[in-house]
Amino acid sequence: MSSIVGRMPAYQSLESRFRRMALIGEASAMLEWDHAAMMPEGGAAARADSLATLKVVSHELMTDPRLGELLDEAAGDNTLDDWQRANLREMRRLRLHATAVDADLVEASSKAANDCEMVWRKARPAADFKMLLPSLQRVLDLARETAKAKAAVLGVPPYEALLDRFEPGGSSQRIDAVFDDYARFLPEFLESVLAHQERRPKPLIPTGPFPAEAQRRLGVELMARLGFDFQHGRLDVSLHPFCGGIPEDVRITTRYSEDDFTQGLMGVLHETGHALYEMGLPKTWRRQPVGEARGMAVHESQSLLIEMQACRGREFMAFAAPVIAKAFAAAGPAWEADNLHRLYTKVARSLIRVEADEVTYPAHVILRYRLEKAMIEGALQLADLPGAWNDGMRQLLGVAPPDDRLGCLQDIHWPAGVWGYFPTYTLGAMTAAQLFDAARGADAAIVPGLAKGDFAPLLAWLRTNVHGLGSKLSTDELVTKATGRPLDAAIFKAHLKARYLA
Amino acid sequence: MSSIVGRMPAYQSLESRFRRMALIGEASAMLEWDHAAMMPEGGAAARADSLATLKVVSHELMTDPRLGELLDEAAGDNTLDDWQRANLREMRRLRLHATAVDADLVEASSKAANDCEMVWRKARPAADFKMLLPSLQRVLDLARETAKAKAAVLGVPPYEALLDRFEPGGSSQRIDAVFDDYARFLPEFLESVLAHQERRPKPLIPTGPFPAEAQRRLGVELMARLGFDFQHGRLDVSLHPFCGGIPEDVRITTRYSEDDFTQGLMGVLHETGHALYEMGLPKTWRRQPVGEARGMAVHESQSLLIEMQACRGREFMAFAAPVIAKAFAAAGPAWEADNLHRLYTKVARSLIRVEADEVTYPAHVILRYRLEKAMIEGALQLADLPGAWNDGMRQLLGVAPPDDRLGCLQDIHWPAGVWGYFPTYTLGAMTAAQLFDAARGADAAIVPGLAKGDFAPLLAWLRTNVHGLGSKLSTDELVTKATGRPLDAAIFKAHLKARYLA
Repeated sequence: MSSIVGRMPAYQSLESRFRRMALIGEASAMLEWDHAAMMPEGGAAARADSLATLKVVSHELMTDPRLGELLDEAAGDNTLDDWQRANLREMRRLRLHATAVDADLVEASSKAANDCEMVWRKARPAADFKMLLPSLQRVLDLARETAKAKAAVLGVPPYEALLDRFEPGGSSQRIDAVFDDYARFLPEFLESVLAHQERRPKPLIPTGPFPAEAQRRLGVELMARLGFDFQHGRLDVSLHPFCGGIPEDVRITTRYSEDDFTQGLMGVLHETGHALYEMGLPKTWRRQPVGEARGMAVHESQSLLIEMQACRGREFMAFAAPVIAKAFAAAGPAWEADNLHRLYTKVARSLIRVEADEVTYPAHVILRYRLEKAMIEGALQLADLPGAWNDGMRQLLGVAPPDDRLGCLQDIHWPAGVWGYFPTYTLGAMTAAQLFDAARGADAAIVPGLAKGDFAPLLAWLRTNVHGLGSKLSTDELVTKATGRPLDAAIFKAHLKARYLA
Repeated sequence: MSSIVGRMPAYQSLESRFRRMALIGEASAMLEWDHAAMMPEGGAAARADSLATLKVVSHELMTDPRLGELLDEAAGDNTLDDWQRANLREMRRLRLHATAVDADLVEASSKAANDCEMVWRKARPAADFKMLLPSLQRVLDLARETAKAKAAVLGVPPYEALLDRFEPGGSSQRIDAVFDDYARFLPEFLESVLAHQERRPKPLIPTGPFPAEAQRRLGVELMARLGFDFQHGRLDVSLHPFCGGIPEDVRITTRYSEDDFTQGLMGVLHETGHALYEMGLPKTWRRQPVGEARGMAVHESQSLLIEMQACRGREFMAFAAPVIAKAFAAAGPAWEADNLHRLYTKVARSLIRVEADEVTYPAHVILRYRLEKAMIEGALQLADLPGAWNDGMRQLLGVAPPDDRLGCLQDIHWPAGVWGYFPTYTLGAMTAAQLFDAARGADAAIVPGLAKGDFAPLLAWLRTNVHGLGSKLSTDELVTKATGRPLDAAIFKAHLKARYLA
């Protein structure tokens, strides 16, 4: 056999290399779940070493010069179909991110973020921004350096180079358009919503205790209704709820407060939305870049579509209220569908993002987006962050944090070195509204299904229009194809008006 | 800086390479625990792929030709101390095992074992040896081929080449000596034990149900007494109990029968013995071959020392009986220390190895050792195995299996391709007796400690004489240094006489 005939074509060789990286990534994903859900504290240092080694092994595979040659060779292969070409595009993107920044900068950034996170854990409860400033400055400096290096390679402005890691192809101009639109809309709309709310009866608060085991069983029951396949996943407990694992074995977590079941339950439904996306990714393209979820905005759209659009709606609540009451062997007016719906759609001006409602949440995100973009661009100095934060809160939401604990120290993202992530929350919320609107229009069985606890029609639409596409299309293409137009804040605003002013 | 000055010495470079392999191995260890204790069924195929990839990555590192050169270079390094030289010896051994057999044979063996295990799962309940024969023949043929290839490289007979994987440096001649000794001793001794037992009152059986959660809490309480550090480990449930994880995060498992707590509880104590060994390995040599446990015989000696020597003894039972009774809110004559001790030291001729008592267990192992050695050497044909098995059972234990389900089909080892492992069970039992005898002689506080539930003196002796040595010494050297003489069946026999004829 001649060496030419026997040689694997470049594209196939790339698939085989990326498959290996994906499989190493799967091991890491499981170890990260274990870290959060199972590991005893004393295992932390050893686990960090083990994860770091898997990362190094993967990084070496990704930055192997031969991989670059194969990408060049495959670029000229005109036998490739659409999916393969999209796969090649995603491979190239991943390699650009891996090679744009040299190993020293990666290591320094990782170390600085670890150090800063430790300081943040003390500075936040102490409401002491000055304590955090030096280490956060170091993290920011390195983030800016990273942004610059990636910007040069990706050919985009520095902030977009960071955003691209979480939201591939994300554009500041597009984000500004929808965020500015919402920021203009919010103040007056919020007044109307609060006034409308005042005129309705106050929701009754169900009184506990709500045993964790009863909450878990309820979560499992509703997850199964939503289409979560327990042959291919688990529900466990961790400090911060998340969705991890791999498509064949999705691990979601939540936490239970025995005084209040409402947050934990919606947490489970939210993570189930993420899980359904992972479970529905295209099987043919498993372990290839094109088979992965499209990005964090689309991922968040899937959790919010389930949580906010479907499960906080009147239809689902009509089905769920008696199921919830039964789970806690409870009865009475607090457990009526109408009351639970009011409870789950309560709106308030507030200081903390993770506790915010659907209407005000985008203001928290818009603030962070504007501030992080300004800091990466050098237009805002870190020392001026607390003042800029408080000004922004007043302007966007009409509230002022009494201290930095309730202000610019509340989130872990920046100390942990995660810059360019925040906008995906609100892009996700808007995308969720737009996708749900299109789904309802496409299949008249979807909304009546929710009222019977039947998610099959909704899931079928999502499988076809979102999950099964993996990363074949860009986010913009995906949204346009599924809904007939690019992301538009108008649909999200219409959804809010219908829900909160009706 | 010149390239000579800047070059890492061969030995340091080896440590760094083996450290990486160890860290990949740690990821695998956790994934294997997860597979047995947490994973939903639908994750099995993906998990197998992920584990196989980690294995391939490690294998590539181990068989890298540069590693061979480094081993050769380091061999001439006369600056190395004892530990480093022992480390080098273990590195060489691991590499010999990895390179002795070519990749095709490894893959064929792995596939044949997977296939055979699937057939065995049907053939065993059907008591159908003929069904198993073709696939087990394939497994045996490949094991013989592997044995031959390793024998050539290790310079030992084929059976020992397989044994070496589990019991480094293990010698058939030495095993024959202690096993033959025991086989001669057993028939008459067993008659005496059974006669003696007949003269004593029959143990009363505590009646359940024993809720799994109460059993778990009891297990955790006793594990803590034994010195298991829950900051560095967990207790969970799996179909087959085992000890997994890593020294900083040891994961042991058990299973609970709600009708009978006795087996599950001793299972927990047995696995805790394994866990204490892992937790006590030398921290300085973590992630180096010399820092690993010495081999399966020493490992089994640690579980059996805890379970059989310490926890089934009268002293510990005096402490444990009220703790056990309290765990199940029980009282009465069945819960007295003397009764529980009789229950836990009951002897019977039986057909199934895993249910056998301390006196007859070695007969089950001796039979398997003799048969597998004969099969690997070609002296016994697989078709003749059922007959040889039944003859051996009659001769060693005076019982005859009514069918092959209760005979040669009962164990998974051979179908799973695990040849050369069986002797480590009984070598472990004998080593446990010899080590415990030496420990008692060395520290008079050990036995009184057990009667108070205080394992600290025993653990201290084990830390110094076994755990903390890792793989620095050979098994023979370790036993001789700790007990003053090589392994000797006489001490095990003396222990049995003291316990079962007193």
